[in-house]
Amino acid sequence: MDRKVVAIDVGGTFLKAAAITEAGEIVAKEEWPTAVEQGTSAVLDRIAAVAKAVAEKACWNWGEVAGVGLGVPGFHDFDNHLCEESVNLGWKNVYIVKEMESRLGVPVRFDNDANAAALGETWIGGGKGHRHTVMVTLGTGIGGGIVIDNKIYRGANGMGGEIGHMVMEPVRGERCNCGQIGCLETIASATGILRAAQKRVAEGQETSLRNVANLTTKDVFEHAANGDRVAAEVIDYAVHKLGLALALIGNTLNPEVIVIGGGPSRAGDVLYKPLNDYFRKYALKRVAKAAKIRPAELGNDAGVLGAAKLVLS
Amino acid sequence: MDRKVVAIDVGGTFLKAAAITEAGEIVAKEEWPTAVEQGTSAVLDRIAAVAKAVAEKACWNWGEVAGVGLGVPGFHDFDNHLCEESVNLGWKNVYIVKEMESRLGVPVRFDNDANAAALGETWIGGGKGHRHTVMVTLGTGIGGGIVIDNKIYRGANGMGGEIGHMVMEPVRGERCNCGQIGCLETIASATGILRAAQKRVAEGQETSLRNVANLTTKDVFEHAANGDRVAAEVIDYAVHKLGLALALIGNTLNPEVIVIGGGPSRAGDVLYKPLNDYFRKYALKRVAKAAKIRPAELGNDAGVLGAAKLVLS
Repeated sequence: MDRKVVAIDVGGTFLKAAAITEAGEIVAKEEWPTAVEQGTSAVLDRIAAVAKAVAEKACWNWGEVAGVGLGVPGFHDFDNHLCEESVNLGWKNVYIVKEMESRLGVPVRFDNDANAAALGETWIGGGKGHRHTVMVTLGTGIGGGIVIDNKIYRGANGMGGEIGHMVMEPVRGERCNCGQIGCLETIASATGILRAAQKRVAEGQETSLRNVANLTTKDVFEHAANGDRVAAEVIDYAVHKLGLALALIGNTLNPEVIVIGGGPSRAGDVLYKPLNDYFRKYALKRVAKAAKIRPAELGNDAGVLGAAKLVLS
Repeated sequence: MDRKVVAIDVGGTFLKAAAITEAGEIVAKEEWPTAVEQGTSAVLDRIAAVAKAVAEKACWNWGEVAGVGLGVPGFHDFDNHLCEESVNLGWKNVYIVKEMESRLGVPVRFDNDANAAALGETWIGGGKGHRHTVMVTLGTGIGGGIVIDNKIYRGANGMGGEIGHMVMEPVRGERCNCGQIGCLETIASATGILRAAQKRVAEGQETSLRNVANLTTKDVFEHAANGDRVAAEVIDYAVHKLGLALALIGNTLNPEVIVIGGGPSRAGDVLYKPLNDYFRKYALKRVAKAAKIRPAELGNDAGVLGAAKLVLS
């Protein structure tokens, strides 16, 4: 058995396709603009075309391909293989599996992008060797994915793992895109951390961050690691709320591993030391004992690898 | 097919046994003192004896019994069929399945009591007809159980669903038995609500609760329903934190139904109206749309029915 799979991370800007073996090896990659402005049907055609292109690049005959896995951002009705809404893609009620199977002639599986990344990391990344994984990706927002018994947990209507919208600061928090006040992603996403730092700079606080042109989240972590008090306070607040949120999830889900993805996941001790401390402060001892917190290992490939695993499972 | 099962809720004070049919009908019940003081081996013998006694009471030959299900409080290692520790029973490292199968000669299944209750309610109680259920029992503490795809979710080391120890008031909260500050069960358990009311009475606050001898949690709900401002504030604070906690779990687990058990679950609108409001305030819209909050229906039988279902599944 060495099944061959094509997987595509369907983003609002790019279609990232990969030809992937059953062992999780990426044999070839392609990246095309999504061209959302051309409309749903044209994008579906482009997904089919990039799938065939990446297979060809890998020197695979299409007849050898066991199936195609897709990571698609949005809200999905998995019982009906339906993408109900994808804001990034401008889609409403797209029967994605039917549409793609008719174009490709092979079995198609899909899930949302954060779930696919969680599955990829559980398969051969930071959660490798574990059955129960929680993945949290710190980016523009906070993406979440839950893997239970090596399968993506989707919940009643596809909302399982929406960790970024846990309300952690209901009174003093900032408004989130979802309409809530104080969601975790307003606080602990890469964007949330950067915004908090920018605010302090704008207030004229005494910090080495004032001297940085085009401040990034990475700068905030680096200045905190180098002892800047204001940067350290910004990081501490974000990591405190993240650690508490992970403990709340931890006491509920009792995971074996919590995988942290996104840019800040590469920050090293300045992130993981306090994150572990806060997690252990708030989680039950036996829960804390069971759970490791680890950085993601697959970077931008997590999504395509997880989408491939959807086909291989 | 009409398999017959014996189930026992193994409590620190009583062994509650029931003879249960495959349809979930309780044919006979027995309740014996546990007699924990006689030691582990004697209690295991008593569990076997009450199992046979309730089968006889039901006019079943032991040979007809398909298996025995047990609800056992404590921390368990399910991979090894081991009760690692049960404070209530004074047990340490009891290979419960092996011990009971050798005494009974039929297959034995076990889980902790809160998980068994959640499974029972999902089977034929407040969660009937749903795959993904969260159960919260408001008693002396707060018990939690999670059912995913009609199976108890246990997590990495048996701590799945420890909802009562979600830290909801880390700064101003009271100390919990677990050592933490501000666990949900210090706030929203029947005991926590009563304690908050007693404190206000002791402070001399102007409330009709002052005239109640031997104040109970039920009184607090009733006086709140009848317009007593202080009782209403006590209930509002507890229900607010419970609703927020359920929303945090909701955004993570996206359940189809949240079943509320324990004494307060019978309080009616004075509980469910604000609980629904707070849940909907903090949960993502799509999560709130999917989840119903319902009272438990099986009362004290939830545990034995769930333990029976462990054998029948």
